Amino acid sequence: MKKRLSHYDAKGAVSMVDVSDKQVTDRTAIAHAFVRMSPEVIRALPDNKKGNPLEIARIAGISAAKKTSELIPLCHQLPLTHVSVDFDIRKGGISVTAQAATAARTGVEMEALTAVSIAALTIYDMTKALDKGIEIRDIHLIEKTGGKSGVYRRKNSK
Amino acid sequence: MKKRLSHYDAKGAVSMVDVSDKQVTDRTAIAHAFVRMSPEVIRALPDNKKGNPLEIARIAGISAAKKTSELIPLCHQLPLTHVSVDFDIRKGGISVTAQAATAARTGVEMEALTAVSIAALTIYDMTKALDKGIEIRDIHLIEKTGGKSGVYRRKNSK
Amino acid sequence: MKKRLSHYDAKGAVSMVDVSDKQVTDRTAIAHAFVRMSPEVIRALPDNKKGNPLEIARIAGISAAKKTSELIPLCHQLPLTHVSVDFDIRKGGISVTAQAATAARTGVEMEALTAVSIAALTIYDMTKALDKGIEIRDIHLIEKTGGKSGVYRRKNSK
Amino acid sequence: MKKRLSHYDAKGAVSMVDVSDKQVTDRTAIAHAFVRMSPEVIRALPDNKKGNPLEIARIAGISAAKKTSELIPLCHQLPLTHVSVDFDIRKGGISVTAQAATAARTGVEMEALTAVSIAALTIYDMTKALDKGIEIRDIHLIEKTGGKSGVYRRKNSK
Amino acid sequence: MKKRLSHYDAKGAVSMVDVSDKQVTDRTAIAHAFVRMSPEVIRALPDNKKGNPLEIARIAGISAAKKTSELIPLCHQLPLTHVSVDFDIRKGGISVTAQAATAARTGVEMEALTAVSIAALTIYDMTKALDKGIEIRDIHLIEKTGGKSGVYRRKNSK
Amino acid sequence: MKKRLSHYDAKGAVSMVDVSDKQVTDRTAIAHAFVRMSPEVIRALPDNKKGNPLEIARIAGISAAKKTSELIPLCHQLPLTHVSVDFDIRKGGISVTAQAATAARTGVEMEALTAVSIAALTIYDMTKALDKGIEIRDIHLIEKTGGKSGVYRRKNSK
Repeated sequence: MKKRLSHYDAKGAVSMVDVSDKQVTDRTAIAHAFVRMSPEVIRALPDNKKGNPLEIARIAGISAAKKTSELIPLCHQLPLTHVSVDFDIRKGGISVTAQAATAARTGVEMEALTAVSIAALTIYDMTKALDKGIEIRDIHLIEKTGGKSGVYRRKNSK
Repeated sequence: MKKRLSHYDAKGAVSMVDVSDKQVTDRTAIAHAFVRMSPEVIRALPDNKKGNPLEIARIAGISAAKKTSELIPLCHQLPLTHVSVDFDIRKGGISVTAQAATAARTGVEMEALTAVSIAALTIYDMTKALDKGIEIRDIHLIEKTGGKSGVYRRKNSK
Repeated sequence: MKKRLSHYDAKGAVSMVDVSDKQVTDRTAIAHAFVRMSPEVIRALPDNKKGNPLEIARIAGISAAKKTSELIPLCHQLPLTHVSVDFDIRKGGISVTAQAATAARTGVEMEALTAVSIAALTIYDMTKALDKGIEIRDIHLIEKTGGKSGVYRRKNSK
Repeated sequence: MKKRLSHYDAKGAVSMVDVSDKQVTDRTAIAHAFVRMSPEVIRALPDNKKGNPLEIARIAGISAAKKTSELIPLCHQLPLTHVSVDFDIRKGGISVTAQAATAARTGVEMEALTAVSIAALTIYDMTKALDKGIEIRDIHLIEKTGGKSGVYRRKNSK
Repeated sequence: MKKRLSHYDAKGAVSMVDVSDKQVTDRTAIAHAFVRMSPEVIRALPDNKKGNPLEIARIAGISAAKKTSELIPLCHQLPLTHVSVDFDIRKGGISVTAQAATAARTGVEMEALTAVSIAALTIYDMTKALDKGIEIRDIHLIEKTGGKSGVYRRKNSK
Repeated sequence: MKKRLSHYDAKGAVSMVDVSDKQVTDRTAIAHAFVRMSPEVIRALPDNKKGNPLEIARIAGISAAKKTSELIPLCHQLPLTHVSVDFDIRKGGISVTAQAATAARTGVEMEALTAVSIAALTIYDMTKALDKGIEIRDIHLIEKTGGKSGVYRRKNSK
């Protein structure tokens, strides 16, 4: 059977696809983003007494995952059972990963991808006074489990 | 004067910074994102009678720009006077640009960056049945005008 | 000059149109909706000790007016200076009118129309246990003032 | 047993009614709205290179269905398994229908009705530059299945 | 085992905790708030022909319960099966109680607490023209049922 | 002139009051809340490697201030020029203060009060595993400036 673009029905019209007949199963997804920044900006990150830009980015990413179906027009509303956002400070910037889980009829990859994207944008917002050239890259899905299509794992994931 | 991380006050606590004394001026920003996809997926994009994934991504990006202050914790609420999202289909994927404008006390770069990010995520969502390896990259600010810091233009912007 | 569909730019792409160069002026709009219901349902409306379905519909309409730019994709965000929703119980149902006002660069007709629509849907929701055949009709703009196009007043408005 | 207004408890106070003891069953609803417009406006609809006002209205209707419990104060939050919005261009205007489905303890008629109402308001918003006299009418429930009250089908539905 | 702050994982990072392995059970919570106001303000409450400040506060509290996971960053999204808000006019002010119920993997105490808090703030908003010294106090959990930790009942609850 | 309940018009109907004729002036407000908790819970607050419950509460409070007009039905939408939330750890619990500022036609006291209330609820949510008896109290306005009614300062504010 030929693969089709997501969210289009047989007549070619867009819809929030009918998942009524799909099984409720446990589903997880892990996504990644990278915020490239100069060593000067990286060094400035922990340089304040209270709070840390990454902690605020973490909260922003978790909150955004819960808003995914409001942001991506054809996403189903999923009751998330877990969301976490983690950071790894590397030489050229900050690596952001997010995990999301649900028990639902459809997958959570958009929730994990939305979490890393908004966390990365929040890091940008917190550091933009130091450098307007910061860039977000490598937003991709690392892993996905559950549902009929089974496990997906990205090759050569950084 | 030494530059500081955005949104931190003199005591080092995070806040939505006080812009009460700033001038209301016209401000614009242009941002960019790139959705890298295989030629097969690019060819599938217009392949449906009604609607087009890019049109849905455009609406998603415009709507997201209006939600920026709900997504990025320390962003001010700005009454946008203009938002547009445009696409350029290239060899290796789709280039997304967004323009945002306001008359306000603070800049609109986060609004433009949020628009391209959510438009790119929506393209991902519409095409993910064809290829889970799609990647979003090169999210950056192209240009910014208005406000005390004046015009910023990215060097070598693609 | 030929009139064009709203929200399309010169290239035919949809956008939140640029109103940067428009004047901030006082603008008002009045909209109307009619909820047709049987005399039995009308008689049941005030039949409860605390609260009244119309009071809940009023709050729903006012709250919805504030959400207009989240619901109608290309609407600008307007800081409303006034919203009111009123009801007139007639023979065949309930007439709903909403007034909205702002000082902004673009009109408030969508805000007034959204207020009457959601108020009418709330009346439906509060009474649907009694009659599923209730119908909403005659949603239209009664009057609009302010802005370059001046005053509009519907002919033969009920 | 005497029928009561929806959402009122035994003491006459309004509440989000307790459905804890109801069964989770598959539920569907179909709703209708009609946007009356002149032949000139109908002819202008497809008259632009990119995008189509009806496609934007479709997205707005689907997105609004997911927001129903935020708009209608006493509606329960339902995880929709399907939403679609369709248009039929007729002589005097555009007929809008929406289908919604869920597996839940309460029905989805408000979701389908909200979808057609916001889709219709979006058509209004996209065409209002051509004609301010456009009217929305015939918002009603066509069909409802699932739950204890069983199937409802409107008589003489257009 | 040593008790830990809520929402922190083993590494000490904050997350929306993983409840994937918890059972879906019926859960309820009752919360309380008190709005202290002068006898003059209490007497003014019913003094208007249409509507009543407490009815508006009731709707605000019910609506807010549905928004809890948008307000409290690490709260899970719960499909509420019931929310009610009640008022008791006492000598020194108004006692507010809210009940919430769900069938979910985690408890509804934050939903009940959010409902009483926003209902109390709405009473403040409706009466602040009469007295700016109004105070909200005694926001606490009265009772909680369901889940592994079983029943909690506050001692000496007023 | 006799004082009236806020938000009621001359006919006694509730509305979002018309502020069209009011002046846009700078307005500020400071509000307070107190989260009473046992010394054991207070000692546990900083006891985790990354993040701090109070930092999360701060973000929640700032974000909630921006949502005030969605939570309090008759509040106007205000473009906030500043929001900050601060904590003072005392013997019996945590004192929360929030400052809000705007340039608008109506005051920001509800924004400051919403910020302290949601910040306090978030502290509750982060610590509830340790003690369900935590109580929020002393939510009140400390100070208000701007607008026709001038400066208000609470007597004997703690």
